[in-house]
Amino acid sequence: MTDTTQNTRILLASRPHGEPTADNFHIERAPLPEPADGEVLLRTIYLSLDPYMRGRMNDAKSYAAPVELGSVMEGGTVSEVVESRDDSLEVGDLVLSHVGWQAYGVQPARHVRKLDPARAPISTAVGVLGMPGFTAYAGLLEIGRPQPGETVVVAAAAGPVGSAVGQIARIKGARAVGIAGGPDKVAWLEELGFDVALDHRSPTFRADLEAAVPDGIDVYFENVGGHVWDAVLPRLNTYARVPVCGLVAHYNETEPPAGPDRSSRLMAAILTKSITLRGFIQHEFVKARYRSFQEEVSSWIGDGSLRYREDIVEGLDNAPDAFFGLLTGKSFGKLLVQVGTDPTR
Amino acid sequence: MTDTTQNTRILLASRPHGEPTADNFHIERAPLPEPADGEVLLRTIYLSLDPYMRGRMNDAKSYAAPVELGSVMEGGTVSEVVESRDDSLEVGDLVLSHVGWQAYGVQPARHVRKLDPARAPISTAVGVLGMPGFTAYAGLLEIGRPQPGETVVVAAAAGPVGSAVGQIARIKGARAVGIAGGPDKVAWLEELGFDVALDHRSPTFRADLEAAVPDGIDVYFENVGGHVWDAVLPRLNTYARVPVCGLVAHYNETEPPAGPDRSSRLMAAILTKSITLRGFIQHEFVKARYRSFQEEVSSWIGDGSLRYREDIVEGLDNAPDAFFGLLTGKSFGKLLVQVGTDPTR
Repeated sequence: MTDTTQNTRILLASRPHGEPTADNFHIERAPLPEPADGEVLLRTIYLSLDPYMRGRMNDAKSYAAPVELGSVMEGGTVSEVVESRDDSLEVGDLVLSHVGWQAYGVQPARHVRKLDPARAPISTAVGVLGMPGFTAYAGLLEIGRPQPGETVVVAAAAGPVGSAVGQIARIKGARAVGIAGGPDKVAWLEELGFDVALDHRSPTFRADLEAAVPDGIDVYFENVGGHVWDAVLPRLNTYARVPVCGLVAHYNETEPPAGPDRSSRLMAAILTKSITLRGFIQHEFVKARYRSFQEEVSSWIGDGSLRYREDIVEGLDNAPDAFFGLLTGKSFGKLLVQVGTDPTR
Repeated sequence: MTDTTQNTRILLASRPHGEPTADNFHIERAPLPEPADGEVLLRTIYLSLDPYMRGRMNDAKSYAAPVELGSVMEGGTVSEVVESRDDSLEVGDLVLSHVGWQAYGVQPARHVRKLDPARAPISTAVGVLGMPGFTAYAGLLEIGRPQPGETVVVAAAAGPVGSAVGQIARIKGARAVGIAGGPDKVAWLEELGFDVALDHRSPTFRADLEAAVPDGIDVYFENVGGHVWDAVLPRLNTYARVPVCGLVAHYNETEPPAGPDRSSRLMAAILTKSITLRGFIQHEFVKARYRSFQEEVSSWIGDGSLRYREDIVEGLDNAPDAFFGLLTGKSFGKLLVQVGTDPTR
């Protein structure tokens, strides 16, 4: 399915004001890039789409430099080596890479990690065994620190991060309450073993949440914000921990919402309930926890205690539409773009 | 100065709506209370006035039960035993107690702690060697965790908590930037050795703060909120820690301030800069740190590296006015009411 004579690249054409649109992207054909010494030419098999990419489209200071206008949109990829100018990699090797939204890319060999298809499906390298899975694992265990019997609530629970958070919470002996949008996602969370699954689109959502957490909330894994956070905050227990991993409900805000200004009430809640709010990006914990993450999560997948779901969109040209859907809750599971053939399937 | 035949008590007469007023208090004379077995009758020498008392006047759920209407306002006290019905204490013993806003009170002997006047002035038991000092010590070291060379900013820096925070930060090798209201307080902070002292009432405060923290802020010890927090937030570094100890600028708010609603921007800052916001009350850390606190702070006072200042108001009847001044920044140093004679001075 990939043209082997030329590249397809999706560039950031303009910065969105609010919700991103197709106009913000430019799809172009280009010659294949050529690797220099120590580099490899990679063919993209899977492109990972993740909410953080919305932040990279802005010019604002964030936790990473923005994508430059006219540059390829960045993103994690699973790729096949099609030309190698480094002894460490051979043609045909499958690697975790960061080629971005394009069909081919060149990377230094030392920046990619070889994958073993016998160990796990290669797509999991950008999913449950990759950045999203590690985000769940490290944020929950390092910041959330759920104790047996405690109540863990997670939003966007049918996403790759949220679904792992809830399942790991249960593995650690906590109660898991998952919040997602729509009955299909709720049904899947119940199938995964979440103690309670709630639909945040339900008109009774606030009351449903209250009923689901009779002992309050000890850990809230925040990756949404908005009305879910508003419902959670009053139910947080003393000493609650809130790993703040994402705020997808707010990524398209161009102005602060209308008043009143509730920020001092938020600070007061933090004070009076001795709450910990902690923003994080997974890379902070790589050194301390990545190895244990790989071992533990692989074994949980192996014994069936941790399951995952993929939402695979065919064709790089469909990446922008798929990305818009991700930001509005339309995707279900880990969102991937299949850019080229997966030789292992 | 204390009448030895009857008690004076200050009761909570009504709950304030916004700023507390004299009408919220009722001063009455009453017979001396009588201790039962295991109890002591205490004569109040010093009553400690602290910002947390404003919260106790509300009916709202907070970190402690509210003071009941018609009950004595609560508060930490330094007292002398005038009658003992417990073997552990004798008449004349000086104790740390929690008798509240009254000239005499009865307490179980096991609820008070005997003080050694040879070790430190007894007033420090409700100040630098008591709750405020421990709040500074535990909040800074357990949550703030300043590293040598890092920048620590503290608001209400001329208060008993803030002045200890800044000095302990310097003892630990950090830069200390103190924020206070008015030139006298700023001058005192400079005398204490703060690297920079700023007046938050200055029209150039925001620019002054920016100039004072060329490397950003690693720890902000929050006990104020309001426009000081607004100026601090954009200057926080990645991985900054914010112990949230008080919000005196907001205690009298009856409604959330006018919009826009900046709470999602606050969450976004926490996310993008991996900030830790952590509310706390000192008692959480008593078991782990109180002993080391007593030892370390005593030695720092002894060698002159930690200094403190007391603002002593004469006479229990003046407690309400002194308390109003505390909430509006009029007090300077640890605010005490001298209720009765100090036999050690």
